[in-house]
Amino acid sequence: MTPNGEQSTRTPGEQPLTTPGEQMHALVERLYPLCRSITGDGVRATLEIVDEYVPLRVHEVPTGTQVLDWTVPQEWNIRDAYIADAEGNRVVDFAASSLHVLGYSVPVARTMPLAELREHLYTLPDQPTLIPYRTSYYEPKWGFCLAQETLDALPDGDYEVCIDSTLADGHLTYAEHVIPGQVPDEVIVSCHVCHPSLANDNLAGIAVATFLARQLAEETPYYTYRFIFAPGTVGAITWLARNAERIERVKHGLVLACAGDSGQLNYKRSRRGDAEIDRVLRHVLSASERPHRIAEFTPYGYDERQYCSPGFDLGVGSLSRTPYAGYPEYHTSADNPDFVSPEAMADTLAVCREAFAVLDRNRRYVNLSPYGEPQLGRRGLYDSLGGRSDAKQAQMAMLWVLSLSDGEHSLLDVAERAALPFDTVAVAADALHGAGLIKA
Amino acid sequence: MTPNGEQSTRTPGEQPLTTPGEQMHALVERLYPLCRSITGDGVRATLEIVDEYVPLRVHEVPTGTQVLDWTVPQEWNIRDAYIADAEGNRVVDFAASSLHVLGYSVPVARTMPLAELREHLYTLPDQPTLIPYRTSYYEPKWGFCLAQETLDALPDGDYEVCIDSTLADGHLTYAEHVIPGQVPDEVIVSCHVCHPSLANDNLAGIAVATFLARQLAEETPYYTYRFIFAPGTVGAITWLARNAERIERVKHGLVLACAGDSGQLNYKRSRRGDAEIDRVLRHVLSASERPHRIAEFTPYGYDERQYCSPGFDLGVGSLSRTPYAGYPEYHTSADNPDFVSPEAMADTLAVCREAFAVLDRNRRYVNLSPYGEPQLGRRGLYDSLGGRSDAKQAQMAMLWVLSLSDGEHSLLDVAERAALPFDTVAVAADALHGAGLIKA
Amino acid sequence: MTPNGEQSTRTPGEQPLTTPGEQMHALVERLYPLCRSITGDGVRATLEIVDEYVPLRVHEVPTGTQVLDWTVPQEWNIRDAYIADAEGNRVVDFAASSLHVLGYSVPVARTMPLAELREHLYTLPDQPTLIPYRTSYYEPKWGFCLAQETLDALPDGDYEVCIDSTLADGHLTYAEHVIPGQVPDEVIVSCHVCHPSLANDNLAGIAVATFLARQLAEETPYYTYRFIFAPGTVGAITWLARNAERIERVKHGLVLACAGDSGQLNYKRSRRGDAEIDRVLRHVLSASERPHRIAEFTPYGYDERQYCSPGFDLGVGSLSRTPYAGYPEYHTSADNPDFVSPEAMADTLAVCREAFAVLDRNRRYVNLSPYGEPQLGRRGLYDSLGGRSDAKQAQMAMLWVLSLSDGEHSLLDVAERAALPFDTVAVAADALHGAGLIKA
Repeated sequence: MTPNGEQSTRTPGEQPLTTPGEQMHALVERLYPLCRSITGDGVRATLEIVDEYVPLRVHEVPTGTQVLDWTVPQEWNIRDAYIADAEGNRVVDFAASSLHVLGYSVPVARTMPLAELREHLYTLPDQPTLIPYRTSYYEPKWGFCLAQETLDALPDGDYEVCIDSTLADGHLTYAEHVIPGQVPDEVIVSCHVCHPSLANDNLAGIAVATFLARQLAEETPYYTYRFIFAPGTVGAITWLARNAERIERVKHGLVLACAGDSGQLNYKRSRRGDAEIDRVLRHVLSASERPHRIAEFTPYGYDERQYCSPGFDLGVGSLSRTPYAGYPEYHTSADNPDFVSPEAMADTLAVCREAFAVLDRNRRYVNLSPYGEPQLGRRGLYDSLGGRSDAKQAQMAMLWVLSLSDGEHSLLDVAERAALPFDTVAVAADALHGAGLIKA
Repeated sequence: MTPNGEQSTRTPGEQPLTTPGEQMHALVERLYPLCRSITGDGVRATLEIVDEYVPLRVHEVPTGTQVLDWTVPQEWNIRDAYIADAEGNRVVDFAASSLHVLGYSVPVARTMPLAELREHLYTLPDQPTLIPYRTSYYEPKWGFCLAQETLDALPDGDYEVCIDSTLADGHLTYAEHVIPGQVPDEVIVSCHVCHPSLANDNLAGIAVATFLARQLAEETPYYTYRFIFAPGTVGAITWLARNAERIERVKHGLVLACAGDSGQLNYKRSRRGDAEIDRVLRHVLSASERPHRIAEFTPYGYDERQYCSPGFDLGVGSLSRTPYAGYPEYHTSADNPDFVSPEAMADTLAVCREAFAVLDRNRRYVNLSPYGEPQLGRRGLYDSLGGRSDAKQAQMAMLWVLSLSDGEHSLLDVAERAALPFDTVAVAADALHGAGLIKA
Repeated sequence: MTPNGEQSTRTPGEQPLTTPGEQMHALVERLYPLCRSITGDGVRATLEIVDEYVPLRVHEVPTGTQVLDWTVPQEWNIRDAYIADAEGNRVVDFAASSLHVLGYSVPVARTMPLAELREHLYTLPDQPTLIPYRTSYYEPKWGFCLAQETLDALPDGDYEVCIDSTLADGHLTYAEHVIPGQVPDEVIVSCHVCHPSLANDNLAGIAVATFLARQLAEETPYYTYRFIFAPGTVGAITWLARNAERIERVKHGLVLACAGDSGQLNYKRSRRGDAEIDRVLRHVLSASERPHRIAEFTPYGYDERQYCSPGFDLGVGSLSRTPYAGYPEYHTSADNPDFVSPEAMADTLAVCREAFAVLDRNRRYVNLSPYGEPQLGRRGLYDSLGGRSDAKQAQMAMLWVLSLSDGEHSLLDVAERAALPFDTVAVAADALHGAGLIKA
């Protein structure tokens, strides 16, 4: 990993002989303890581990840099934090969970009575055993998050509170991994890396993105695939601000989040609603007969909010399993590595691959022999024995591709209108292309 | 009321301390006995009473004036009419009901046997106790309308028939009331004033229009609202003919008819089918959870026929309760003041106000910070405490307005796509506008 | 019939006094024994018989002529064919059924053991009593088609096989019949004439087309109707190749096939999906309350494949009863004259006539008095007695035609939006046109 520099050439560490699902889960477990935030060393450590799997180009953007309507904030780092009782026992300890500290807490070192301390404590009264996840990025505050039952057990009295954090000029860190394709047009895959010890949100997304990148690199894809590992909101905004000239090359994209729970897959459409990525995901999910849900765009959620803001309006959708805030473990200490499974991550990964396999082959062809049907038989593309009614699917696919290849219809259009598998249609198009009957 | 002249400054008479519904019903009762037609003193007397509530500008258009494809007809007035038996007893008497005379009857004063008289008598055999409403505007005829049971009771013999009417050059009378808005673009509210003693058709419409005008005038609306009280068909045609230069300023409109019966509300779309007024009424009726019906346009009904004729094709719909001919009392003596209720008229009035409240605020904005989300937090528009999943409706409304404010989407579009109340969206837009993030 | 020459003036033979359905069935029976193929004397004999009913212009196109992507093949003729056992008994005999020979079989005269012969035999194991229909137009082969049970009964041993056919340079034959209309814009009606002894596929289509032509000729239609009797695929392609300059005059079309079985009607849309012919057939079938099915276009089927190829993309649909391959008798010896009925053919014919009656009158008019409603009463087009709610259908039709005659809407659009019968709308348009209120 070479921050701000050339592509790393470090190869990933030796992998145990397990399934990709198990490997992804192992990655989630490695990343889990780190205290990530929108800036700081937790993000850097996270990217360093990912870099063992796919080489990353890391970008460091200085505090104060104007990025679109935003400004890169000060960098936050934290070494220790606790609440100790009169006996010096740590009743809340950052070392036990990175969630215990309100994200971006300013430093504090005081002793104060519980009554006063309460104003800085965040709990979930309805889920009394869980620690909530809370942040205060843009308003200077300090605080602790803890289980309601922990709070309830605290006797009145004075407590020592310590947050050994720093907020200082530094950098915002994000990383990219690029798989060059046959064309410079890009597909972006984006996942947020700013959440601390939360497995589904978004270590599973990071793991799926990482293994997707590894698998895509096994052959040269049609599109150039760019993986973006960035802090949520301000990170995506920073990437957009620094890539203004690249935006018009971004044709499609996918935001990966909540990618590992046991719920069914959920694809959220882009703002456009009928972008090619939207149609591809709908097709793939529907064809696969997986239980799934297609959700309309809303301007809330993950970084699709930024990619789909009206000035960019990119064809970027979002793939999740149970969407944010849709499960009780969301943004609590219950979103731990046990909450995500190798099988679910493998399933999310498989759908991404299927979708990109469609996207990569979804050409628009022009029939070069559009007046009447071309004589397929003399080109060896058609059964010579007439009078049979069982026109094979492959022949139907050829006829459909010829019929709809007027420059208006993509192969996905053909597949959907013909109610044929995309792959059958793509194979037929290849045969026709090989025979010189259609051109891209 | 100043015919053909400047706006009246007469203020309405002192009102009894009752609800608007009761006041509207009282107005219906006052107007009920008058014999209105497409011309004549009955219309003038009606407008004189309305003028007590909202000042009217009355227009008198001479007989013979060419108005579009039509010609203003002679003016019809009637003083008395009856059928008397041999003993001189009035067996049918105009004084008892203005419906008894065929509208626009030419004068007659003869004695004739019942057999001959029958050709001039109109009854409703299926509703034998009711007097029908009939007219013959454009073919010179005379006739009486009466209950079938009255006719059945008449012995053979000679009857004296008298219709003391005049058909002579005069004027067609209509009136306007204008509430100046912030912009010269107009909304028209039109109701027909040509029907004699029929309460729902259209005294209730006149009453709702009158009180709508009073209430709208309480503050300066965005649009300029023009209320048109005119005889059906030829009256609306006359208004259109005399306002050719104004038409392009008419952006929306509503025809009010059958506004007081106990049936559910019925909104009939404009010819365009998806004019803004159509979408507003659908939204308001749907959001209000009132039982209601949305009907497609037909070129039959009330004066929406004229406003929506293909040359004009205005965005004018029609709001009724039970639509014309949809209730057995329609165009009979059973359509009397008991058939309409204060509650129903108040409900119709309320929907009009809700609809115009949406219409008046339904802007299209442009997001001035369309690349990525603007940082709402530093403008005080966003909760500073992150990590919470319960994004409030108000914040969602702001995000939706920002997302869709590309000059293409109105706030109603935003409300419908976001499934948020229009008011919440409008308040969000006001906040964003106040912060300089969007412009109209 | 005058091949390649002027229109024949021969009148059809004297007809027995029967219904058109019975006459069509008699025609099917006459045509049934002939051995048709994509070329040859069987087609010529077929056209000679059709010419007795409607005069045909026959075209002979030489072998080797380039037609679009195809080449006119050699002409195939056959005099005799059989398989004889050792005793000289014909166990399979072309004279018994034209289906017995693989279409376009090259000549053969040999004796061979059954084991070797089997490679040239085609049966239907699942329908063991039926002879299949098979061809090999573009690959030189020979073969016999026979019932599985016939084959099973053959003892091993040597058999004499004889196919007395010729494949030689000659012509491809097709014919046209044209009914001149009021305008040069054309409607084509096309049916394939290349199938041997198969009644529903397509002698019924030929019969319906023939009688349709006879009936349409009884008065001058609006459109010019061109009937095309051509071999499937290469015949239609030949017609298209030789009529390049005519194509832009072809506004609508219908392919007739499988027109005589007892199944419900099936209309297959053109490739465009919403061509006028598609809308007309949907309207007529729906209005007639016949059970029917509307099928989406597919690039497989009959010669709509060619007319709808993307370079032409004509508004040509296909009318069948049970579509191809949808009945077990399809392409077998069970598709004999008993399989088609006079009633079914008469029904198909009736729908064609209804559809063309709509198509021929489906104008777009422009309202010449579009500002407000024109005064219909003074033109005698409207009931003079007002106040009645029972606006008649005819008057509603006039109001609808006036409302929608903006040059955008056809009378079919009017009928569908108004939910009125097309005929009522067309009559109303005639009345308005007569009164000078609309122009075409």
